Amino acid sequence: MSDYQPTERTQVKRLPKRGKYDQETVFSILDTAFVCHVGFTVDGQPYVIPTNFGRSGDMLYLHGSAASRMLRQLSEGLPVCVTVTHVDGLVLARSAFHHSVNYRSVVILGRARLVEDPAEKMEALRIFTEHVMKGRWNDVRQPTEQELKATTVLALPLDEVSAKVRTGGPIDDEGDYNLPVWAGVLPLTTSVKSPEPDPQRRNDPPVPEYLRNYTR
Amino acid sequence: MSDYQPTERTQVKRLPKRGKYDQETVFSILDTAFVCHVGFTVDGQPYVIPTNFGRSGDMLYLHGSAASRMLRQLSEGLPVCVTVTHVDGLVLARSAFHHSVNYRSVVILGRARLVEDPAEKMEALRIFTEHVMKGRWNDVRQPTEQELKATTVLALPLDEVSAKVRTGGPIDDEGDYNLPVWAGVLPLTTSVKSPEPDPQRRNDPPVPEYLRNYTR
Repeated sequence: MSDYQPTERTQVKRLPKRGKYDQETVFSILDTAFVCHVGFTVDGQPYVIPTNFGRSGDMLYLHGSAASRMLRQLSEGLPVCVTVTHVDGLVLARSAFHHSVNYRSVVILGRARLVEDPAEKMEALRIFTEHVMKGRWNDVRQPTEQELKATTVLALPLDEVSAKVRTGGPIDDEGDYNLPVWAGVLPLTTSVKSPEPDPQRRNDPPVPEYLRNYTR
Repeated sequence: MSDYQPTERTQVKRLPKRGKYDQETVFSILDTAFVCHVGFTVDGQPYVIPTNFGRSGDMLYLHGSAASRMLRQLSEGLPVCVTVTHVDGLVLARSAFHHSVNYRSVVILGRARLVEDPAEKMEALRIFTEHVMKGRWNDVRQPTEQELKATTVLALPLDEVSAKVRTGGPIDDEGDYNLPVWAGVLPLTTSVKSPEPDPQRRNDPPVPEYLRNYTR
Protein backbone atom coordinates (compact mmCIF):
# COMPACT_ATOMS: atom_id res chain seq x y z
CA MET A 1 0.00 0.00 0.00
CA SER A 2 1.11 3.57 -0.57
CA ASP A 3 2.23 6.13 1.96
CA TYR A 4 0.91 9.53 2.97
CA GLN A 5 3.20 12.46 2.41
CA PRO A 6 3.73 14.20 5.76
CA THR A 7 3.03 17.93 5.57
CA GLU A 8 4.24 20.72 7.81
CA ARG A 9 0.95 20.22 9.70
CA THR A 10 0.93 16.43 10.01
CA GLN A 11 4.60 15.60 10.48
CA VAL A 12 5.11 14.25 14.01
CA LYS A 13 7.60 16.60 15.62
CA ARG A 14 7.58 15.46 19.25
CA LEU A 15 9.18 11.97 19.37
CA PRO A 16 9.34 11.70 15.55
CA LYS A 17 10.17 7.98 15.60
CA ARG A 18 6.58 7.39 16.75
CA GLY A 19 5.27 8.94 13.52
CA LYS A 20 3.86 6.55 10.87
CA TYR A 21 2.68 7.55 7.43
CA ASP A 22 1.84 4.22 5.77
CA GLN A 23 -1.68 3.36 4.71
CA GLU A 24 -1.63 -0.05 6.34
CA THR A 25 -1.03 1.42 9.81
CA VAL A 26 -3.56 4.21 9.26
CA PHE A 27 -6.29 1.90 7.97
CA SER A 28 -5.83 -0.67 10.73
CA ILE A 29 -6.15 2.04 13.42
CA LEU A 30 -9.27 3.48 11.79
CA ASP A 31 -10.96 0.18 11.02
CA THR A 32 -10.86 -1.18 14.58
CA ALA A 33 -12.17 1.97 16.30
CA PHE A 34 -15.77 2.68 17.26
CA VAL A 35 -15.61 6.45 17.54
CA CYS A 36 -13.56 9.32 16.26
CA HIS A 37 -13.23 12.80 17.76
CA VAL A 38 -14.15 15.58 15.34
CA GLY A 39 -12.60 19.01 15.88
CA PHE A 40 -13.93 22.21 14.31
CA THR A 41 -13.88 25.89 15.20
CA VAL A 42 -16.86 28.25 15.50
CA ASP A 43 -16.36 31.91 16.46
CA GLY A 44 -12.79 31.15 17.50
CA GLN A 45 -13.83 28.37 19.90
CA PRO A 46 -12.72 24.83 19.04
CA TYR A 47 -15.18 22.00 19.71
CA VAL A 48 -14.31 18.31 19.93
CA ILE A 49 -17.25 15.94 19.49
CA PRO A 50 -17.18 12.12 19.57
CA THR A 51 -19.05 10.42 16.75
CA ASN A 52 -19.22 7.28 14.63
CA PHE A 53 -17.56 6.98 11.28
CA GLY A 54 -16.89 4.61 8.42
CA ARG A 55 -14.14 4.25 5.84
CA SER A 56 -14.22 3.23 2.21
CA GLY A 57 -10.87 3.30 0.44
CA ASP A 58 -9.33 6.72 0.91
CA MET A 59 -12.57 8.33 2.11
CA LEU A 60 -13.76 8.75 5.68
CA TYR A 61 -17.51 9.17 6.17
CA LEU A 62 -19.23 10.98 9.04
CA HIS A 63 -22.97 11.05 9.53
CA GLY A 64 -25.72 12.18 11.81
CA SER A 65 -29.03 13.91 12.01
CA ALA A 66 -29.74 16.56 9.40
CA ALA A 67 -30.49 18.76 12.45
CA SER A 68 -26.91 18.47 13.77
CA ARG A 69 -25.19 21.84 14.05
CA MET A 70 -21.79 20.23 13.76
CA LEU A 71 -22.57 18.53 10.46
CA ARG A 72 -24.21 21.64 9.06
CA GLN A 73 -21.15 23.69 9.88
CA LEU A 74 -18.74 21.10 8.52
CA SER A 75 -20.74 20.75 5.32
CA GLU A 76 -19.94 24.39 4.62
CA GLY A 77 -16.30 23.40 4.20
CA LEU A 78 -14.81 24.48 7.53
CA PRO A 79 -11.35 23.07 8.25
CA VAL A 80 -11.78 19.91 10.31
CA CYS A 81 -9.56 17.54 12.27
CA VAL A 82 -10.65 13.95 12.89
CA THR A 83 -8.68 11.95 15.46
CA VAL A 84 -8.96 8.25 16.32
CA THR A 85 -7.16 6.82 19.36
CA HIS A 86 -6.66 3.38 20.87
CA VAL A 87 -5.13 3.05 24.35
CA ASP A 88 -3.24 -0.27 24.45
CA GLY A 89 -1.48 -0.20 27.78
CA LEU A 90 -0.17 1.70 30.77
CA VAL A 91 3.62 1.89 30.77
CA LEU A 92 4.90 1.86 34.34
CA ALA A 93 8.47 3.06 34.75
CA ARG A 94 10.61 3.22 37.89
CA SER A 95 10.41 7.02 37.89
CA ALA A 96 7.17 9.03 37.72
CA PHE A 97 8.76 11.05 34.89
CA HIS A 98 9.10 8.09 32.50
CA HIS A 99 5.57 6.77 32.90
CA SER A 100 3.85 6.57 29.54
CA VAL A 101 0.98 5.04 27.61
CA ASN A 102 1.04 2.61 24.70
CA TYR A 103 -1.36 3.94 22.10
CA ARG A 104 -2.13 4.15 18.41
CA SER A 105 -3.67 7.31 16.99
CA VAL A 106 -4.51 8.80 13.61
CA VAL A 107 -4.97 12.51 12.87
CA ILE A 108 -6.73 13.59 9.65
CA LEU A 109 -6.83 17.21 8.52
CA GLY A 110 -8.96 18.55 5.71
CA ARG A 111 -12.36 19.81 4.67
CA ALA A 112 -15.46 17.65 4.41
CA ARG A 113 -17.84 17.49 1.48
CA LEU A 114 -21.60 17.01 1.79
CA VAL A 115 -22.63 13.72 0.16
CA GLU A 116 -25.70 14.51 -1.94
CA ASP A 117 -25.81 11.66 -4.44
CA PRO A 118 -28.40 9.20 -3.05
CA ALA A 119 -26.42 6.13 -4.16
CA GLU A 120 -23.20 7.32 -2.48
CA LYS A 121 -25.22 8.29 0.59
CA MET A 122 -26.83 4.85 0.84
CA GLU A 123 -23.46 3.18 0.33
CA ALA A 124 -22.00 5.33 3.14
CA LEU A 125 -24.80 4.20 5.47
CA ARG A 126 -23.99 0.59 4.59
CA ILE A 127 -20.36 1.31 5.42
CA PHE A 128 -21.25 2.79 8.84
CA THR A 129 -23.28 -0.25 9.78
CA GLU A 130 -20.69 -2.71 8.52
CA HIS A 131 -17.91 -0.74 10.22
CA VAL A 132 -19.53 -1.36 13.59
CA MET A 133 -20.60 -4.92 12.86
CA LYS A 134 -19.77 -6.87 9.73
CA GLY A 135 -22.79 -8.78 8.49
CA ARG A 136 -25.36 -6.52 10.14
CA TRP A 137 -26.48 -4.49 7.09
CA ASN A 138 -28.09 -7.38 5.22
CA ASP A 139 -29.90 -8.46 8.36
CA VAL A 140 -31.74 -5.23 9.19
CA ARG A 141 -34.36 -3.01 7.64
CA GLN A 142 -32.50 -0.66 5.36
CA PRO A 143 -33.12 3.10 5.24
CA THR A 144 -36.26 4.51 3.66
CA GLU A 145 -36.15 7.56 1.44
CA GLN A 146 -37.40 9.65 4.37
CA GLU A 147 -34.70 8.31 6.70
CA LEU A 148 -32.09 9.04 4.05
CA LYS A 149 -33.34 12.63 3.91
CA ALA A 150 -33.17 12.94 7.69
CA THR A 151 -29.51 11.89 7.65
CA THR A 152 -26.57 14.08 6.73
CA VAL A 153 -23.48 12.32 5.39
CA LEU A 154 -20.10 13.99 4.97
CA ALA A 155 -17.04 12.67 3.16
CA LEU A 156 -13.52 13.60 4.23
CA PRO A 157 -10.67 12.49 1.96
CA LEU A 158 -7.78 10.67 3.66
CA ASP A 159 -5.16 12.92 2.24
CA GLU A 160 -3.37 14.90 4.95
CA VAL A 161 -2.98 12.09 7.48
CA SER A 162 -0.52 10.87 10.07
CA ALA A 163 -0.43 8.13 12.68
CA LYS A 164 1.46 7.98 15.95
CA VAL A 165 2.22 4.72 17.71
CA ARG A 166 3.96 3.84 20.97
CA THR A 167 4.63 0.19 21.82
CA GLY A 168 6.91 -1.66 24.22
CA GLY A 169 8.03 -1.39 27.82
CA PRO A 170 9.26 1.49 29.95
CA ILE A 171 12.53 3.27 29.17
CA ASP A 172 14.11 4.27 32.46
CA ASP A 173 17.14 6.38 33.19
CA GLU A 174 20.17 4.13 33.54
CA GLY A 175 20.56 5.02 37.21
CA ASP A 176 16.99 3.94 38.00
CA TYR A 177 17.14 0.32 36.78
CA ASN A 178 18.49 -0.83 40.14
CA LEU A 179 15.59 0.71 42.09
CA PRO A 180 13.33 -1.82 43.85
CA VAL A 181 10.24 -0.74 41.87
CA TRP A 182 8.04 -3.02 39.75
CA ALA A 183 8.16 -1.82 36.13
CA GLY A 184 6.45 -3.06 32.99
CA VAL A 185 3.25 -2.71 31.04
CA LEU A 186 -0.36 -3.19 32.06
CA PRO A 187 -2.04 -4.11 28.73
CA LEU A 188 -5.54 -2.76 28.14
CA THR A 189 -8.06 -4.02 25.63
CA THR A 190 -11.67 -3.39 24.64
CA SER A 191 -13.70 -6.48 25.36
CA VAL A 192 -17.16 -7.56 24.47
CA LYS A 193 -19.58 -8.90 27.06
CA SER A 194 -22.60 -11.13 26.40
CA PRO A 195 -25.20 -9.61 24.07
CA GLU A 196 -28.24 -8.27 25.98
CA PRO A 197 -31.46 -8.92 24.04
CA ASP A 198 -34.03 -6.14 23.79
CA PRO A 199 -36.67 -6.74 26.51
CA GLN A 200 -39.24 -5.57 23.93
CA ARG A 201 -38.44 -8.43 21.53
CA ARG A 202 -41.31 -10.13 19.71
CA ASN A 203 -40.06 -12.14 16.74
CA ASP A 204 -36.32 -11.82 17.34
CA PRO A 205 -34.32 -14.87 16.22
CA PRO A 206 -31.46 -16.26 18.35
CA VAL A 207 -28.22 -14.25 18.55
CA PRO A 208 -26.84 -14.21 14.99
CA GLU A 209 -23.47 -15.75 14.21
CA TYR A 210 -21.79 -12.42 13.32
CA LEU A 211 -22.65 -11.24 16.83
CA ARG A 212 -21.73 -14.46 18.67
CA ASN A 213 -18.30 -14.46 17.04
CA TYR A 214 -17.81 -10.73 17.37
CA THR A 215 -14.24 -9.58 17.90
CA ARG A 216 -12.54 -6.26 17.34
CA MET B 1 -22.58 18.06 44.67
CA SER B 2 -23.33 21.20 42.71
CA ASP B 3 -24.30 21.52 39.07
CA TYR B 4 -22.74 23.27 36.11
CA GLN B 5 -24.72 26.05 34.52
CA PRO B 6 -25.23 25.18 30.83
CA THR B 7 -24.18 28.02 28.53
CA GLU B 8 -25.21 28.70 24.95
CA ARG B 9 -22.07 26.80 23.98
CA THR B 10 -22.37 23.76 26.26
CA GLN B 11 -26.12 23.16 26.34
CA VAL B 12 -26.84 19.86 24.59
CA LYS B 13 -29.19 20.76 21.74
CA ARG B 14 -29.39 17.51 19.78
CA LEU B 15 -31.27 14.97 21.95
CA PRO B 16 -31.34 17.31 24.98
CA LYS B 17 -32.48 14.57 27.37
CA ARG B 18 -28.99 13.07 27.02
CA GLY B 19 -27.44 16.25 28.46
CA LYS B 20 -26.19 16.10 32.06
CA TYR B 21 -24.83 19.02 34.03
CA ASP B 22 -24.23 17.56 37.48
CA GLN B 23 -20.77 17.31 38.96
CA GLU B 24 -21.17 13.70 40.00
CA THR B 25 -21.75 12.55 36.40
CA VAL B 26 -18.97 14.77 35.05
CA PHE B 27 -16.41 13.67 37.66
CA SER B 28 -17.17 9.96 37.25
CA ILE B 29 -16.71 10.17 33.47
CA LEU B 30 -13.43 12.05 33.85
CA ASP B 31 -12.02 9.95 36.67
CA THR B 32 -12.34 6.60 34.89
CA ALA B 33 -10.83 7.70 31.56
CA PHE B 34 -7.21 7.26 30.50
CA VAL B 35 -7.03 9.90 27.78
CA CYS B 36 -8.79 13.07 26.78
CA HIS B 37 -8.86 14.69 23.32
CA VAL B 38 -7.62 18.29 23.34
CA GLY B 39 -8.88 20.63 20.61
CA PHE B 40 -7.22 23.91 19.72
CA THR B 41 -6.97 26.09 16.62
CA VAL B 42 -3.82 27.37 14.94
CA ASP B 43 -4.01 29.50 11.77
CA GLY B 44 -7.68 28.57 11.38
CA GLN B 45 -6.97 24.83 11.44
CA PRO B 46 -8.37 22.85 14.39
CA TYR B 47 -6.19 20.09 15.86
CA VAL B 48 -7.38 17.27 18.11
CA ILE B 49 -4.63 15.54 20.09
CA PRO B 50 -5.05 12.66 22.56
CA THR B 51 -3.26 13.08 25.86
CA ASN B 52 -3.29 12.12 29.54
CA PHE B 53 -4.84 14.26 32.19
CA GLY B 54 -5.64 14.45 35.87
CA ARG B 55 -8.32 16.13 37.95
CA SER B 56 -8.21 17.77 41.34
CA GLY B 57 -11.49 19.28 42.51
CA ASP B 58 -12.72 21.65 39.83
CA MET B 59 -9.39 21.77 37.99
CA LEU B 60 -8.29 19.61 35.08
CA TYR B 61 -4.53 19.28 34.57
CA LEU B 62 -2.75 18.58 31.28
CA HIS B 63 0.95 17.98 30.99
CA GLY B 64 3.71 17.07 28.63
CA SER B 65 7.16 17.94 27.46
CA ALA B 66 8.19 21.58 27.69
CA ALA B 67 9.04 21.15 23.97
CA SER B 68 5.39 20.38 23.05
CA ARG B 69 3.97 22.84 20.54
CA MET B 70 0.45 22.13 21.73
CA LEU B 71 1.19 22.97 25.35
CA ARG B 72 3.15 26.08 24.39
CA GLN B 73 0.25 27.32 22.32
CA LEU B 74 -2.34 26.50 24.96
CA SER B 75 -0.28 28.19 27.67
CA GLU B 76 -0.72 31.44 25.74
CA GLY B 77 -4.41 31.28 26.59
CA LEU B 78 -5.93 30.03 23.32
CA PRO B 79 -9.52 28.80 23.60
CA VAL B 80 -9.43 25.05 24.18
CA CYS B 81 -11.92 22.18 24.19
CA VAL B 82 -11.18 19.00 26.14
CA THR B 83 -13.39 15.99 25.48
CA VAL B 84 -13.47 12.63 27.27
CA THR B 85 -15.48 9.72 25.88
CA HIS B 86 -16.32 6.19 27.01
CA VAL B 87 -18.00 3.78 24.58
CA ASP B 88 -20.16 1.42 26.64
CA GLY B 89 -22.03 -0.60 24.04
CA LEU B 90 -23.28 -1.04 20.50
CA VAL B 91 -27.03 -0.55 20.26
CA LEU B 92 -28.43 -2.83 17.57
CA ALA B 93 -31.89 -1.89 16.35
CA ARG B 94 -34.10 -3.65 13.81
CA SER B 95 -33.58 -0.83 11.32
CA ALA B 96 -30.19 0.49 10.19
CA PHE B 97 -31.49 3.99 10.95
CA HIS B 98 -31.99 3.40 14.68
CA HIS B 99 -28.61 1.83 15.38
CA SER B 100 -26.80 3.76 18.07
CA VAL B 101 -24.02 3.65 20.63
CA ASN B 102 -24.18 3.77 24.40
CA TYR B 103 -21.60 6.26 25.55
CA ARG B 104 -20.68 8.80 28.21
CA SER B 105 -18.83 11.96 27.24
CA VAL B 106 -17.76 15.24 28.80
CA VAL B 107 -16.95 18.43 26.91
CA ILE B 108 -15.00 21.21 28.67
CA LEU B 109 -14.54 24.66 27.12
CA GLY B 110 -12.19 27.32 28.40
CA ARG B 111 -8.68 28.65 28.47
CA ALA B 112 -5.78 26.96 30.22
CA ARG B 113 -3.32 28.55 32.59
CA LEU B 114 0.37 27.66 32.80
CA VAL B 115 1.16 26.21 36.23
CA GLU B 116 4.34 27.92 37.40
CA ASP B 117 4.28 27.44 41.15
CA PRO B 118 6.62 24.47 41.83
CA ALA B 119 4.42 23.09 44.62
CA GLU B 120 1.25 23.14 42.46
CA LYS B 121 3.23 21.63 39.59
CA MET B 122 4.55 18.79 41.75
CA GLU B 123 1.06 18.18 43.11
CA ALA B 124 -0.30 18.03 39.53
CA LEU B 125 2.31 15.40 38.64
CA ARG B 126 1.22 13.37 41.64
CA ILE B 127 -2.38 13.69 40.43
CA PHE B 128 -1.48 12.45 36.90
CA THR B 129 0.26 9.38 38.28
CA GLU B 130 -2.48 8.61 40.78
CA HIS B 131 -5.16 9.18 38.10
CA VAL B 132 -3.69 6.35 36.04
CA MET B 133 -2.92 4.09 38.99
CA LYS B 134 -3.82 4.78 42.58
CA GLY B 135 -0.91 3.90 44.87
CA ARG B 136 1.79 4.28 42.25
CA TRP B 137 3.17 7.70 43.21
CA ASN B 138 4.57 6.66 46.57
CA ASP B 139 6.19 3.62 44.99
CA VAL B 140 8.28 5.31 42.29
CA ARG B 141 11.12 7.76 42.10
CA GLN B 142 9.55 11.19 42.19
CA PRO B 143 10.49 14.02 39.80
CA THR B 144 13.79 15.83 40.18
CA GLU B 145 14.03 19.60 39.82
CA GLN B 146 15.37 19.10 36.28
CA GLU B 147 12.48 16.80 35.32
CA LEU B 148 10.05 19.32 36.75
CA LYS B 149 11.60 21.99 34.51
CA ALA B 150 11.33 19.73 31.47
CA THR B 151 7.59 19.28 32.07
CA THR B 152 4.89 21.78 31.21
CA VAL B 153 1.70 21.62 33.27
CA LEU B 154 -1.50 23.43 32.36
CA ALA B 155 -4.61 23.92 34.48
CA LEU B 156 -8.07 24.21 32.96
CA PRO B 157 -10.93 25.15 35.29
CA LEU B 158 -14.02 22.91 35.12
CA ASP B 159 -16.37 25.78 34.62
CA GLU B 160 -18.09 25.59 31.21
CA VAL B 161 -18.80 21.86 31.16
CA SER B 162 -21.44 19.45 29.96
CA ALA B 163 -21.83 15.70 29.81
CA LYS B 164 -23.84 13.58 27.39
CA VAL B 165 -24.94 10.06 28.22
CA ARG B 166 -26.85 7.38 26.30
CA THR B 167 -27.86 4.19 28.05
CA GLY B 168 -30.36 1.41 27.42
CA GLY B 169 -31.60 -0.66 24.52
CA PRO B 170 -32.65 0.19 20.97
CA ILE B 171 -35.71 2.33 20.27
CA ASP B 172 -37.32 1.03 17.10
CA ASP B 173 -40.19 2.39 15.07
CA GLU B 174 -43.42 0.74 16.20
CA GLY B 175 -43.83 -0.99 12.84
CA ASP B 176 -40.41 -2.62 13.09
CA TYR B 177 -40.83 -4.50 16.37
CA ASN B 178 -42.37 -7.47 14.57
CA LEU B 179 -39.41 -7.87 12.20
CA PRO B 180 -37.45 -11.10 12.62
CA VAL B 181 -34.22 -9.26 13.48
CA TRP B 182 -32.16 -9.75 16.64
CA ALA B 183 -32.06 -6.47 18.55
CA GLY B 184 -30.34 -5.46 21.76
CA VAL B 185 -27.05 -4.19 23.12
CA LEU B 186 -23.54 -5.55 22.80
CA PRO B 187 -21.84 -4.18 25.93
CA LEU B 188 -18.22 -3.09 25.61
CA THR B 189 -15.73 -2.62 28.38
CA THR B 190 -12.06 -1.80 28.82
CA SER B 191 -10.32 -4.75 30.38
CA VAL B 192 -6.94 -5.25 31.89
CA LYS B 193 -4.72 -8.17 30.92
CA SER B 194 -1.89 -9.66 33.01
CA PRO B 195 0.90 -7.22 33.83
CA GLU B 196 3.99 -7.74 31.63
CA PRO B 197 7.19 -7.23 33.64
CA ASP B 198 10.00 -5.22 32.07
CA PRO B 199 12.49 -7.68 30.52
CA GLN B 200 15.22 -5.33 31.77
CA ARG B 201 14.28 -5.80 35.42
CA ARG B 202 17.05 -6.12 38.02
CA ASN B 203 15.71 -5.53 41.52
CA ASP B 204 11.99 -5.37 40.73
CA PRO B 205 9.77 -6.73 43.52
CA PRO B 206 6.72 -8.93 42.75
CA VAL B 207 3.68 -7.27 41.14
CA PRO B 208 2.41 -4.77 43.75
CA GLU B 209 -1.04 -5.11 45.24
CA TYR B 210 -2.42 -1.90 43.64
CA LEU B 211 -1.54 -3.43 40.27
CA ARG B 212 -2.80 -6.96 40.99
CA ASN B 213 -6.17 -5.60 42.07
CA TYR B 214 -6.36 -2.97 39.34
CA THR B 215 -9.81 -2.16 38.02
CA ARG B 216 -11.19 0.80 36.20
